Amino acid sequence: MAMTLYELGGKKNFRYCPFCWRSLMALKHKGFDDFDRISVYYRDRTPIAFTDQDRVPVLVDGDHWVSDSWDIAKYLEDTYPGRPTLFGDPVGRANAQFISAWVLQLHKPFLTAILMWDAYQHLDPADRSWWRADREARFGKLENYKHGREESILEWRKLLSPFRVTLSEQPFLGGHAPAYADYIVFGSFQWARCVSKLELLETDDPIFIWRDRLLDLFDGFARAAPHASA
Amino acid sequence: MAMTLYELGGKKNFRYCPFCWRSLMALKHKGFDDFDRISVYYRDRTPIAFTDQDRVPVLVDGDHWVSDSWDIAKYLEDTYPGRPTLFGDPVGRANAQFISAWVLQLHKPFLTAILMWDAYQHLDPADRSWWRADREARFGKLENYKHGREESILEWRKLLSPFRVTLSEQPFLGGHAPAYADYIVFGSFQWARCVSKLELLETDDPIFIWRDRLLDLFDGFARAAPHASA
Repeated sequence: MAMTLYELGGKKNFRYCPFCWRSLMALKHKGFDDFDRISVYYRDRTPIAFTDQDRVPVLVDGDHWVSDSWDIAKYLEDTYPGRPTLFGDPVGRANAQFISAWVLQLHKPFLTAILMWDAYQHLDPADRSWWRADREARFGKLENYKHGREESILEWRKLLSPFRVTLSEQPFLGGHAPAYADYIVFGSFQWARCVSKLELLETDDPIFIWRDRLLDLFDGFARAAPHASA
Repeated sequence: MAMTLYELGGKKNFRYCPFCWRSLMALKHKGFDDFDRISVYYRDRTPIAFTDQDRVPVLVDGDHWVSDSWDIAKYLEDTYPGRPTLFGDPVGRANAQFISAWVLQLHKPFLTAILMWDAYQHLDPADRSWWRADREARFGKLENYKHGREESILEWRKLLSPFRVTLSEQPFLGGHAPAYADYIVFGSFQWARCVSKLELLETDDPIFIWRDRLLDLFDGFARAAPHASA
């Protein structure tokens, strides 16, 4: 039976949720190609009401469902051990936890602020009033985030230093081949690529080159996604 | 044949080099208890002249030697695969690379500056003039680092956030058991503990509790080391 991934929908076919991208890449990594994708919108979570929570991604596999991108990755790894591994062994899985926490630090405050305005532009139009109310309660006026982003990007690039150093030694966080840790970081870059024309990276940055590798994976699956920076 | 670890020596029996502590913990993790420890001082690297380089740690195992803490960890793992694993599988090893790069970011500029003055106090007295000249060429007057450290520590604690989040989910970076990634981070905390009475962490910080776990390992091996914060 085919699986179904419930993910965040944007305007037209933009699907930009960084956590959903982690799950999309994890599914591809595990060799699943025929899963269904169902969009969920901020204003109406009824498609995932059966989970008794309101966050995407949600994966449905037969009569089983899992929410939360980390739990989805663990589910795929543990349920399909014969397919390509996402974590390697338990030490690799534990280290991926760290990468996940490290990426949160990249988001708050930097990436969240840098992409706030562009993310707003790529919402489904009917989601805009919900999103503006939700985000402005937490972050202040959306319009405050239209300017000053170029300087923030310069600061943000410095935070990426450990990743850059790592990629000078190996092509992927997972070593010679991509692992779930790569998809954790990639989700955020793919979010940026989907919603924004801002160039987060210089073209000679090892991270830029790594991102290109990730875009090429699975016959260019992520590269083919609708994106703003085309 | 017993192994020998050449490590940085300080005054009295202080051995504080963070990279040497990585190797010490790696040796213990691999179950080696009877290795010899030889101190090397900044002013005189002749004990490791046979390596054609001037950095410690250096591990000698029979007629083979390895320098650089990362290469030592890889050597121990690959040469003694039947003993407890330091990395888990190749994905875990690749992730440890990232942790190593992340720790560098903790050092520069924060931890280097916070501990500069205290590190100077714990040098072997005959090393002081060499060290002062070397460090002042790179960092300016040592005396500049005597004050303002408490505020730097508050900033530095924020940088540790990904590690803190990770430890809220699992007792070690390695998951349920310590791995080399833990020793990479621990080396820096042990350096601080050896040379400084400054308390880098609040006692209710999950990282404080993790550090206690590391100090307890191997019958309290690291806890028993001469340290300044007693």
